Amino acid sequence: MFDKVLIANRGEIALRVLRACRELGVRTVVVHSSADADSLPVRLADEAVRIGPAASRRSYLNAAAIVEAARQTGAQAIHPGYGFLSEDADFAEICAGNGLVFVGPPPQVMAALADKSTARALMSRAGLPLPPGSVRTLATVAEAQEVAAEVGYPVIVKAAAGGGGRGMTVVRSAAELPRAYARTRAAAQVAFGDDRVYVERYLADARHVEVQVLCDGHGNGVHLGTRDCSVQRRHQKLIEEAPAPALRQATLDTVAEVALRGALSVGFTGAGTVEFLVDEAERCHFLEINCRIQVEHPVTEMITGVDLVQEQLHIAFGTPLRLRQSDVRLTGVAIECRVNVEDPDRDFAPAPGRLDRFRPPGGPFTRVDTHGHAGYLVSPHYDSLLAKVAVWAPDRDAALDRLDRALAEFDVAGPGVRTTIPFARRVLRDPAFRAARHTTDVVDRLLAPPAEDAARAAVPDPRGAAEPAGRTPVSAAPAAGPTTWRNR
Amino acid sequence: MFDKVLIANRGEIALRVLRACRELGVRTVVVHSSADADSLPVRLADEAVRIGPAASRRSYLNAAAIVEAARQTGAQAIHPGYGFLSEDADFAEICAGNGLVFVGPPPQVMAALADKSTARALMSRAGLPLPPGSVRTLATVAEAQEVAAEVGYPVIVKAAAGGGGRGMTVVRSAAELPRAYARTRAAAQVAFGDDRVYVERYLADARHVEVQVLCDGHGNGVHLGTRDCSVQRRHQKLIEEAPAPALRQATLDTVAEVALRGALSVGFTGAGTVEFLVDEAERCHFLEINCRIQVEHPVTEMITGVDLVQEQLHIAFGTPLRLRQSDVRLTGVAIECRVNVEDPDRDFAPAPGRLDRFRPPGGPFTRVDTHGHAGYLVSPHYDSLLAKVAVWAPDRDAALDRLDRALAEFDVAGPGVRTTIPFARRVLRDPAFRAARHTTDVVDRLLAPPAEDAARAAVPDPRGAAEPAGRTPVSAAPAAGPTTWRNR
Repeated sequence: MFDKVLIANRGEIALRVLRACRELGVRTVVVHSSADADSLPVRLADEAVRIGPAASRRSYLNAAAIVEAARQTGAQAIHPGYGFLSEDADFAEICAGNGLVFVGPPPQVMAALADKSTARALMSRAGLPLPPGSVRTLATVAEAQEVAAEVGYPVIVKAAAGGGGRGMTVVRSAAELPRAYARTRAAAQVAFGDDRVYVERYLADARHVEVQVLCDGHGNGVHLGTRDCSVQRRHQKLIEEAPAPALRQATLDTVAEVALRGALSVGFTGAGTVEFLVDEAERCHFLEINCRIQVEHPVTEMITGVDLVQEQLHIAFGTPLRLRQSDVRLTGVAIECRVNVEDPDRDFAPAPGRLDRFRPPGGPFTRVDTHGHAGYLVSPHYDSLLAKVAVWAPDRDAALDRLDRALAEFDVAGPGVRTTIPFARRVLRDPAFRAARHTTDVVDRLLAPPAEDAARAAVPDPRGAAEPAGRTPVSAAPAAGPTTWRNR
Repeated sequence: MFDKVLIANRGEIALRVLRACRELGVRTVVVHSSADADSLPVRLADEAVRIGPAASRRSYLNAAAIVEAARQTGAQAIHPGYGFLSEDADFAEICAGNGLVFVGPPPQVMAALADKSTARALMSRAGLPLPPGSVRTLATVAEAQEVAAEVGYPVIVKAAAGGGGRGMTVVRSAAELPRAYARTRAAAQVAFGDDRVYVERYLADARHVEVQVLCDGHGNGVHLGTRDCSVQRRHQKLIEEAPAPALRQATLDTVAEVALRGALSVGFTGAGTVEFLVDEAERCHFLEINCRIQVEHPVTEMITGVDLVQEQLHIAFGTPLRLRQSDVRLTGVAIECRVNVEDPDRDFAPAPGRLDRFRPPGGPFTRVDTHGHAGYLVSPHYDSLLAKVAVWAPDRDAALDRLDRALAEFDVAGPGVRTTIPFARRVLRDPAFRAARHTTDVVDRLLAPPAEDAARAAVPDPRGAAEPAGRTPVSAAPAAGPTTWRNR
């Protein structure tokens, strides 16, 4: 195993990686911005190096400073966490060029998968089912119109360089397409420096189902079951669970197998997530592959007993995978809730500040990952994730009751500080969510004006109805335009 | 299930029971002393009733006040936690007389098992192996001498009304016996109002192994595997793990089966623990049965996935056991460390005070049960247990590494406050403990003067040696006399 690993991240995931290193006897270097000088990862690391000011661009995204910190401290590998440089193929390349192990797939695999259009083509070749749409990017609006007419409206225009919910526009009719096409291209150019787009059928009433895989550099791979992350607001996940509920075992088996096949087919290594949309008929449609540890990885750890971050480190070190598929057994149900410092009553606007009180939940089958503590100043410079509360139970109902109990006892307060806990508890009480009949529109439905909400409450199972009454038009969802949010 | 349960305890176990109730949708009443008016269980409960001043005798041991609180609040059942009234058959009787369900076995079963001499006789009849010694209590020193001569020295004189490590004296030779006999009787009279004693062979080089059982009132029972609690100081457990390590599977199976048989044979109901000493040849010797939830129950929960406190409540409500033996599967290894507010450098004297800082560990496979929080005033009135840190891993080595990681990140500080964390981490580094070759003398060995320590370090495996060199005489151990400590 490595002697020393540099952690190029902040917040709870820096702490998560630090814990994995500690348990493996690996010394840790944490790099940090000036805003994080007193953060928990910095305090707990063996060494800490300040690499820049608060602004991410000059600190957590500053590849040169990170590589220099690794050189100075003698770190052999860099764990990028999620977000920031974790999916940046150029950074992985720079690491390799400096004799540093990047904990993730090879740069060329990352580059191929980062281009959604290329990823679609590769996965299609590996036999993964795609949503109906174009495999290639579309250079003119006429081409886009042709594809859209073929697959049928609604469609979604997606930036090839996007991903994680960024750079996409839902289009309800042919009349809307030209404007959406132009807008998505322009926004993609600004956001990613790459204006290529493609068109897919928009799948409403679908569930977001993803598969965790681990692949070594020796041709071995395992899948670790599914997660459902349908509870999303503007494509940002709020509540995640493993395994995906309410699907037939055959569906779960199939999606896991094709996901692993897809990952292995492109020489993927490390911990990856293959994302799908699963429609009402339980048809699975490939969305994208994420090349890093996922925010929601704890729920998979809880149902498998596998420490995914430790496995990442073993794989990066070159150790052949210690797990065989037959070793992976899924037990019970795990559910995680992200606790964001946001105000649900003000359109989930960031609500940072100093935490006067901070007492996370504890007790049976309850896991908390957080960099928060009493006295911590939540910085407005970074994303709003403060804590993840994950619970396990033998069955889903017990897990939901346990999660609600845990959230109810989470005490976090400070001037101006608001969290998403009350909203998450509202989701837990939603009858459709409770019965696992929810799809990716569950959050929009709960946030819809009360009158509509009441009308919808009269429909016991919209997914089963032939003509669901009172459904919000998709275009009314606040998810339409490219945003600056990052899905992790 | 009950609508409302009264929790007749304080500290982390009150919180534990409260969490189980919450998750089952049961409303909670917490009774408390004036010293605990601002405690976490009181804050989190649906209702709280002050039942007396700080002194336990007038609050947590005040049966009349507790029953009155139940009457006033309309609670249907009383969960006694551990310690205090949890093994008081009279209290269970009073509950029944007032139409309240006592969460525990029937009073007559509790009474029979509380008398260690009777418990020995009952378990012997059920076929459980006892340590060589007297089944009956011994009315004269002559009788005691006769039994001691028969079983061979060292022996241990035990109070029939003792238990949990209280009321016993180790005797190395016939010359010491008369004084030890008299002293134990006198101390037992003071402590328990009952001076009956019996004599057993003292088993050195033994492991403390116990079996968790669950029995309903319908003749059904399951065992949930073993725990090793050999890391004890003055018979008080410090570190506990499940399953018991380094024993043959046949030994583990046998001890679990006989434990369940013993419990069922006396009409035991609820969650119970059957304690054994296991000698070098892996012979098991019955010690006692505990009629309540155990401090160390989390490690069993972590390897089985069973919520023992929820099961207690289901059983008390009269629901037939929902588990069959074939449902109980043990996975991995769990280890718990008790964090006591004591000063290891001052003979583990209580070191209470106000907690300026309190940040328990988190992250993967890490569970914390604690009533502590920043600003909490650790009261000198009650026992010193502040927190339990329990971890799970696929194997024992990984679990030990994880526990050490978790303890290292536990930040607790305040004026005058000391904890057992540094000492626990010393145990974790002990080669014999690490290799699971330790027996119940591990703590005394680590606390022995450095010179002896060094001499002993030269003996790689004392348990395997015919004539272990440098062994501290048992009488030198500070565990000899009856103490006021309570084993839970």
